[in-house]
Amino acid sequence: MKTFHIEAPSKQLDAALTEKINLKTKPLGALGVLEQIAFQVGKIQQTLSPQLNNPTIIVFAGDHGIAEEGVVNPYPQAVTAQMVYNFVQGGAAINAFSQLNNIKLEVVDAGVAHDFDPSLPIIHTKIAYGTANYRLQKAMTDAQRDIAIKAGAIIVKSAFEQGSNMIGFGEMGIGNTSAAALLMSYFTQAPIEDCTGAGTSHNNDLLQRKIEVLKSVQAFHANITSPLDALATFGGFEIAMMVGAILQAAELKMVIVIDGFIVSTALLTALALYPAVIEYCVFAHTSHENGHQALLRNLAVKPLLQLDLRLGEGTGAALAMPLIQAAVAFLNNMSSFAEAKVSNIES
Amino acid sequence: MKTFHIEAPSKQLDAALTEKINLKTKPLGALGVLEQIAFQVGKIQQTLSPQLNNPTIIVFAGDHGIAEEGVVNPYPQAVTAQMVYNFVQGGAAINAFSQLNNIKLEVVDAGVAHDFDPSLPIIHTKIAYGTANYRLQKAMTDAQRDIAIKAGAIIVKSAFEQGSNMIGFGEMGIGNTSAAALLMSYFTQAPIEDCTGAGTSHNNDLLQRKIEVLKSVQAFHANITSPLDALATFGGFEIAMMVGAILQAAELKMVIVIDGFIVSTALLTALALYPAVIEYCVFAHTSHENGHQALLRNLAVKPLLQLDLRLGEGTGAALAMPLIQAAVAFLNNMSSFAEAKVSNIES
Repeated sequence: MKTFHIEAPSKQLDAALTEKINLKTKPLGALGVLEQIAFQVGKIQQTLSPQLNNPTIIVFAGDHGIAEEGVVNPYPQAVTAQMVYNFVQGGAAINAFSQLNNIKLEVVDAGVAHDFDPSLPIIHTKIAYGTANYRLQKAMTDAQRDIAIKAGAIIVKSAFEQGSNMIGFGEMGIGNTSAAALLMSYFTQAPIEDCTGAGTSHNNDLLQRKIEVLKSVQAFHANITSPLDALATFGGFEIAMMVGAILQAAELKMVIVIDGFIVSTALLTALALYPAVIEYCVFAHTSHENGHQALLRNLAVKPLLQLDLRLGEGTGAALAMPLIQAAVAFLNNMSSFAEAKVSNIES
Repeated sequence: MKTFHIEAPSKQLDAALTEKINLKTKPLGALGVLEQIAFQVGKIQQTLSPQLNNPTIIVFAGDHGIAEEGVVNPYPQAVTAQMVYNFVQGGAAINAFSQLNNIKLEVVDAGVAHDFDPSLPIIHTKIAYGTANYRLQKAMTDAQRDIAIKAGAIIVKSAFEQGSNMIGFGEMGIGNTSAAALLMSYFTQAPIEDCTGAGTSHNNDLLQRKIEVLKSVQAFHANITSPLDALATFGGFEIAMMVGAILQAAELKMVIVIDGFIVSTALLTALALYPAVIEYCVFAHTSHENGHQALLRNLAVKPLLQLDLRLGEGTGAALAMPLIQAAVAFLNNMSSFAEAKVSNIES
């Protein structure tokens, strides 16, 4: 796999950032979570006056071999490709939110089981027509995994070179909550039941069947040798690309806005390789998907939004970006007590 | 008091709104809380294609007689006027957030203990130089209260006539968490301890002293005769104006974005007079102020944001407005399954 150079941001501005935040015309700590975000963004960018430029969301789409069995998801596999067309035509939720919040949206064919016309405004990096069925074999080869990671990294580097320093990722892939549950169970050691939700369904029988299938998959792949092996065994191409995308974004010291459950399992994989990645991540939302809540507890993080979303596509990231921008706006634009001649408490 | 004509929105579009939301290209319910907001805004505006125009936040500032005793707040009373200057100069948190989110901001002198130059861009509707000290007498006369309610209504009507149909309110007033605690205790019957937080302080001794003072105030005013009497007894001028503002906004069928603790006690007063007001309210955030959380439980509502803010000024409302706009954006701009030719589940 491609090597990344990822280090935690320096602590050298920590005290100055805290002081700048504390001297704003507000009671100490009164902007709550936004104060933590302002601090984090200043630290990532190593400046007391951070700027968020060209916010971008990249949606990776890929199909999953497991979906062909029709046991883990109520939607047919064809919906992955149909939704890619919907993204291109501007009709999906992520389109509505990106447009509203002035976020650049890119759509990537990571491995959809469909041929898209090359002229469509899609980043065409298809690894294969969907992964293999992990009930029978590994989802992808090591070579496919490494290419996917590299592709994700290249796509992020391109966004960075176009001026973006805040990036979020989204995904579309029928069956990918199953891949995510398997990855989460591997990385957190949590039983598969705790990692599995109804996905896009709300049918309890289907959930029980999904859990049984995933348990048999775990038993079949009992000898996973490493985080990268887990990714090849269970991952989707969209998840592997997001691993590369996250790692590249951290190397470039971008603010990484982590969306929901699937993206978070790409993050778990990235963290297993480079733990310092966590310092670049802002968690967008707590999804309604059961596994996501357990995963966030495992990481001991509390996201910005709790809106019971369970859609994917990067929708939570798109909705959270204005809050991150608000944090930076107060840090840059609010007056200090001294500047505004407002009396402070004797502390 | 001025009479308002407030009725609950018709239910006649409920089924059509639900159907429109359910047929969007997403799993049923996958946009969580935003689906409820989209439904509510469509219902308020009685259309399947609602529009949010000229979002506006009005910050009402007023001083409180109790503040002169220096026992309920760590900041000197002069900070109310100083913060009004800060709003005018664009240096406060609400300025940063309003500018970022394209929200028109208006500042009202409801009753600050300071003379502002008439040329300043403030709405000059000062009722008096702060309220009277309610340890000794009612905070305001019935006539002052009624004028304040009317002034709040006129200010909202003006915003409406300038094209706004989504409005939020904010407040600034040293000592006003005490007024809010007394109003909340009156309207919800909750003991004063449950209605009292540290306000802008984070000092536990001050909190205990504040509770003792407020208990003695409740004992002194044991014979309150009506909601309007409670408002006159404990209220600030900024709170009374917000009562009128909320009632007028509901009469005009505007979307009312309810900020934090102080605004919520103005809402409690408005609800005691016209219960249908609740249908026009979107709750912006759960504040870190103790009393606010209890108040929201009492109303059985869950706000959009949980960011541990405790600043006032309408900051929570300003941060929540993009989410309300996102709800309307998905309702208007997302494709249906049929439009996008995406396969739906057989339901």
